[in-house]
Amino acid sequence: MSKTVIIVGGNGAGLSAASQVKKLQPQWKVIVYEKGGYISYASCGMPYFLEGIVKDFKDLLELSPETVINDRKIDLRLHHKVLKVDPENREITVTDGTNNETMNFDYLLLATGAIPSTRGINIKSPLFKRIFTLKSLDDMLTISALLDKQKPQRCGVIGGGYIAVEMLEAFLARGLETHLVHRRDQLAKTFEPEISAMILEKMKEEGIVLDLNLAVKEVSESGKEVVVKTDSGNLTFDFVLIATGVEPNTAFLKDSGIGLGIKDAVSVNKHLQTNYPYIYAAGDCAETTSIITGQPAYVPLAPRANKEGYIAGSNIAGDNEEFPGIGETAVTKFSDMGIARTGLTEKAASKAGYNAVKYTFSTSNRPRYYPGGEELYNVIVISKDDGRFLGAQLAGPLDGVKRIDTFALLIQQKMTLAEAFRLDLAYAPPFSPVYDPVILAARLGRRHVLDAK
Amino acid sequence: MSKTVIIVGGNGAGLSAASQVKKLQPQWKVIVYEKGGYISYASCGMPYFLEGIVKDFKDLLELSPETVINDRKIDLRLHHKVLKVDPENREITVTDGTNNETMNFDYLLLATGAIPSTRGINIKSPLFKRIFTLKSLDDMLTISALLDKQKPQRCGVIGGGYIAVEMLEAFLARGLETHLVHRRDQLAKTFEPEISAMILEKMKEEGIVLDLNLAVKEVSESGKEVVVKTDSGNLTFDFVLIATGVEPNTAFLKDSGIGLGIKDAVSVNKHLQTNYPYIYAAGDCAETTSIITGQPAYVPLAPRANKEGYIAGSNIAGDNEEFPGIGETAVTKFSDMGIARTGLTEKAASKAGYNAVKYTFSTSNRPRYYPGGEELYNVIVISKDDGRFLGAQLAGPLDGVKRIDTFALLIQQKMTLAEAFRLDLAYAPPFSPVYDPVILAARLGRRHVLDAK
Repeated sequence: MSKTVIIVGGNGAGLSAASQVKKLQPQWKVIVYEKGGYISYASCGMPYFLEGIVKDFKDLLELSPETVINDRKIDLRLHHKVLKVDPENREITVTDGTNNETMNFDYLLLATGAIPSTRGINIKSPLFKRIFTLKSLDDMLTISALLDKQKPQRCGVIGGGYIAVEMLEAFLARGLETHLVHRRDQLAKTFEPEISAMILEKMKEEGIVLDLNLAVKEVSESGKEVVVKTDSGNLTFDFVLIATGVEPNTAFLKDSGIGLGIKDAVSVNKHLQTNYPYIYAAGDCAETTSIITGQPAYVPLAPRANKEGYIAGSNIAGDNEEFPGIGETAVTKFSDMGIARTGLTEKAASKAGYNAVKYTFSTSNRPRYYPGGEELYNVIVISKDDGRFLGAQLAGPLDGVKRIDTFALLIQQKMTLAEAFRLDLAYAPPFSPVYDPVILAARLGRRHVLDAK
Repeated sequence: MSKTVIIVGGNGAGLSAASQVKKLQPQWKVIVYEKGGYISYASCGMPYFLEGIVKDFKDLLELSPETVINDRKIDLRLHHKVLKVDPENREITVTDGTNNETMNFDYLLLATGAIPSTRGINIKSPLFKRIFTLKSLDDMLTISALLDKQKPQRCGVIGGGYIAVEMLEAFLARGLETHLVHRRDQLAKTFEPEISAMILEKMKEEGIVLDLNLAVKEVSESGKEVVVKTDSGNLTFDFVLIATGVEPNTAFLKDSGIGLGIKDAVSVNKHLQTNYPYIYAAGDCAETTSIITGQPAYVPLAPRANKEGYIAGSNIAGDNEEFPGIGETAVTKFSDMGIARTGLTEKAASKAGYNAVKYTFSTSNRPRYYPGGEELYNVIVISKDDGRFLGAQLAGPLDGVKRIDTFALLIQQKMTLAEAFRLDLAYAPPFSPVYDPVILAARLGRRHVLDAK
């Protein structure tokens, strides 16, 4: 019997799900409502377009509407915003900007993603021509147009997370006097202080102006100038990017009866069902679980969104797939410094109740005798009680930090240092020292932390 | 009560063990007999010295005799060859070339490594000035002297394993007309045929002459010429490297009563004890276990030797450490092509009784839109019965193949494709596509192999 599946949101999670439903249930009707004019674009590529590394913004479009509509037989409706969900009556209200209509569904997937969070910063601007956030492709194109046409000289980036780090790189590469304006003397709490210090040091070396320990109260635009009011004086820029994080795009669900969790992200079970079993949520609008602590978490990153879309789509179509949650694994770079993390910071681990201890070491990513080795800096968090790995962060050469995946797997598999030391990892001089940093982490942790008297 | 520990062999395994015993039991007497004049050198770096990448051979020496003797208080005796072991009387016979002596021990560690195996090739030479193997630092220095002084033009490398691949790169880089002489039309069986074909293709492109399907009967030296007699004609070179593998250096144990296994490697339990509990063996002279099949295996690679030395030393000193065995993980390169493997080939898996199936795919190591992406070729072996990963091989960019470690861990943890798809691995455009090749392997395997009707 044919069913109607409505999907709200046409980016990674939404279109993964739509494609999966049509693959498994070709006869079902799948409608995707997307409020904007673009679908399925590579958000994570946007900083690299603005930097000038990705030349054509169309390269960021992963699926064309034509492919979605004609090849995948998905009923895609651009510029349609869902206003309201009525779970009991299995009904949504949607507008194309002119007319509202109600639509009924058998299954609903919420995949509305995230929106920028400006964290209480008061934004005063008549036109918002020089104060930006970077979340949508439209945001990116607006910033790009300003860079190209107005030739600004001096910009401020407010925030301390991944987008801030990546956009500081981008603006600096474009030749701007680039300021980091941040309320703490460290970057976001997702980074261990040691890693944060290395990144900030690197930024300074490359020419970023660090305006730290400044709590931004207000950002206002007047003429060709943006004034950033802080608790310790004003700063003036040609334009400002506010990169203070995101929050789930769920305001339209407030009184729907659909359960919301952390930061109002949609609560889901392991099958990605909400409190209404025929309503699913996936990606950045949804809450997830930390694989490590088992606690609810909100971590809006692309791989999870894609996988959750795939899994939600499979389940809607009748499969029985589970998503266990996230390990908080992420990687980025600033200039030629790679930065990677997985698991818990020492602080987060202690807060979660672990008897956590942290140690650090630095090792070359090649044997001493092999040319081209560079120092890889490692911050490791373990549980003193059972010798388990809880977290790892790396900073160093671009070709060295992707080994965070090995740490990620160790942690997600709840492995101990003793087990990790015995792993058979790949070695040859052009690739790693004979004790790979992962093995060395296990060895040093055992000797100096676990066995230390 | 002080004990006497005798260690036969002064390379990775032997000196790791000696150091560990002295660390845990500083009062014990530890004697290391090394038959050559060098200790603890980076064997895996030798091809790169011969290529000219490592400039000074002394850089390959990891520990100096002075450090070992003065700092670590180890009684190191160079140029001492152990002739005989009498396990019942806890006694060895050792010679310095002139005099023999017998020595008693409380614990003995066999760490005599491997020696080249020429696999029945008849070697006729009065002087062995132009026919080489590459196992010891002396071998390396002899080859180096020939390259520097005699300016040879044309060389043959017989074999198809890691050393052959690395030395073909080295000789080619030195400007020689370099031939690969091999008995099959594929490289060693450790490589899947698809990966072997890619390496051979790459070798051809770079200028290696491929003399394949030639079974070498005899290698003989006359004047400045080496003649390689094959089952299909003769080849002539200025010099020849025979790189047809190694075998455990255990001939002196033949009638000792110490149990030998595959290829006469010393049999050990998980504590690295032989059939005499006070006699241990570690590294390339010892047999090990495949973590995957649980069957005995002989895999002489450096990381295992170092770890086994550490573990044997710890156990001799009173600890209770286990070594679970190996996952057959390895990495090497030819020119700018990285080559990595872990686990079982499809053939080995079938032979071991698995319902094994293989699939291949190619994916860029970056998102399509990010510049500099290169194709990474993946060969994946899974068990159709339980959906477990059994083996993976990669060929592609140098900064892409070290993710074999993630596959290695998956396999060593006996993870299924379904579990692997859910892993939280690191993503950002400069580092990987949104579905990392590891996640993609899981996804493709599920869709096209496990769920295929």
